[in-house]
Amino acid sequence: MSKHRELTPVMGAEEVNRLIGQAFPQLNRDHRSYHAVEVFPGGCTVRLDADERHLRPGDTVSGPALFTLADIGGYVCVLSHSGPDALSVTTNININFMRKAVAGPVDGRCKILKLGRSLMVYDCEITQNGQTIAHATGTYSIPPKPGS
Amino acid sequence: MSKHRELTPVMGAEEVNRLIGQAFPQLNRDHRSYHAVEVFPGGCTVRLDADERHLRPGDTVSGPALFTLADIGGYVCVLSHSGPDALSVTTNININFMRKAVAGPVDGRCKILKLGRSLMVYDCEITQNGQTIAHATGTYSIPPKPGS
Amino acid sequence: MSKHRELTPVMGAEEVNRLIGQAFPQLNRDHRSYHAVEVFPGGCTVRLDADERHLRPGDTVSGPALFTLADIGGYVCVLSHSGPDALSVTTNININFMRKAVAGPVDGRCKILKLGRSLMVYDCEITQNGQTIAHATGTYSIPPKPGS
Amino acid sequence: MSKHRELTPVMGAEEVNRLIGQAFPQLNRDHRSYHAVEVFPGGCTVRLDADERHLRPGDTVSGPALFTLADIGGYVCVLSHSGPDALSVTTNININFMRKAVAGPVDGRCKILKLGRSLMVYDCEITQNGQTIAHATGTYSIPPKPGS
Repeated sequence: MSKHRELTPVMGAEEVNRLIGQAFPQLNRDHRSYHAVEVFPGGCTVRLDADERHLRPGDTVSGPALFTLADIGGYVCVLSHSGPDALSVTTNININFMRKAVAGPVDGRCKILKLGRSLMVYDCEITQNGQTIAHATGTYSIPPKPGS
Repeated sequence: MSKHRELTPVMGAEEVNRLIGQAFPQLNRDHRSYHAVEVFPGGCTVRLDADERHLRPGDTVSGPALFTLADIGGYVCVLSHSGPDALSVTTNININFMRKAVAGPVDGRCKILKLGRSLMVYDCEITQNGQTIAHATGTYSIPPKPGS
Repeated sequence: MSKHRELTPVMGAEEVNRLIGQAFPQLNRDHRSYHAVEVFPGGCTVRLDADERHLRPGDTVSGPALFTLADIGGYVCVLSHSGPDALSVTTNININFMRKAVAGPVDGRCKILKLGRSLMVYDCEITQNGQTIAHATGTYSIPPKPGS
Repeated sequence: MSKHRELTPVMGAEEVNRLIGQAFPQLNRDHRSYHAVEVFPGGCTVRLDADERHLRPGDTVSGPALFTLADIGGYVCVLSHSGPDALSVTTNININFMRKAVAGPVDGRCKILKLGRSLMVYDCEITQNGQTIAHATGTYSIPPKPGS
């Protein structure tokens, strides 16, 4: 959309995944459950490969696992569009849970709504097999760059 | 999108506007500031024709006026897709304000994320001149239909 | 509470009401529907004197009227604790509607959760006759002071 | 407060912890990181004993770990006040992150704002050493009881 034409990624999914691996070593301790699959102008797609560790009773993916995916999606948006500053922090996330997800890939399609100097606002639609599982909106605080 | 293919409006913008006029007479007391401009499968577009009464200092459209637009957008989604039940009520709205809007038309593009038997979840991107002004996500509670 | 001991109001309810009257002339065009009733260390109480203009069908206070109360509550928190800077703007509000309110006074008890240099986070419990009507959490952006 | 006088827990912290252990075996796989410390009329206190596994760079407790605490707090509220129905699910959580928490106990003080037949709304103030770390508001959906 025209409003996003000014948003240009400064790095791709592979580079982002390397940075996330350094920033969140706890995230993928044993396996690489969460990762970026695509960075595009104005957003990204992140994926959770949900296995038994992410499930709750009823064999559905837990709320915290979906929240983590939405949170990482925002982090990937900031990293890829604003540059590698691992100190960006989440200030707010609102998440609605709508349908159950089962073990397997769960995708979070993230769109930057605003990228300002000190705040980024984004939303993240979480889907599985074309169904909307959850939807989140969040804000990341971007610290001033050294020297600016 | 495929996930919305089952959503079919049961009435159009004109009929919705008549119902809103009855349900919210306070909304457009003097003028017709808020109205539906389009109903489509899975969502709708609503509009605020912002004038001096909706502004705050700095000549920008006030937060409550934008919130009202997002709230009405959800109401139009429920009415148009679930039928004319004026007793549906908002249970939650989360809204992020991103840019300033000035007097003139402000559009809210609403998309139904889930339409269940008792809850509807939707989001609403509020724009002016192609810029995202605000973004809301909300939930409406749908009362059981008489006889069901 | 100990965490709020450092929060000291710099002005009281009367002075805040004068400033709000200047900043939001549209708010109380005809009557003085919204006003601050108390400022205390770490928060404030604001009131809506709901009359027919704030009602929706079923004679209940409308969602936008309650949202406006919560928004003003945050504005009063910023004004009273951070100083008279009418340019502070709402960046996010999340509101849950729980019970119906009728015409008459509706109170919003606001508590500052964090007052930083650039952001204030607060919550607001909206009650009528001892019942919780709605609950909001919000963030105001505080612009840098001139010369700082 | 008077509005909560009707809320009476039907079980205490110990019984709740047993049920959570069954419902969320993934939660405390190795250690007992999350647990209820107190159930009181109208709410509960839950605790995260944050260790290295819950930290992100800068040695601060991660957002998902705090979200998990807030989510469990709501679950404990439902379980303790509405009875042992492990099928209750989160429909919405809004969380604001305000300060950093370090390794050690982090408490979530939860208060039920509304306990209806089909929905429970609550808030959760997350603190460490008397400082507010994060604040969440959430909604749980309560399924109809068999036979009702």
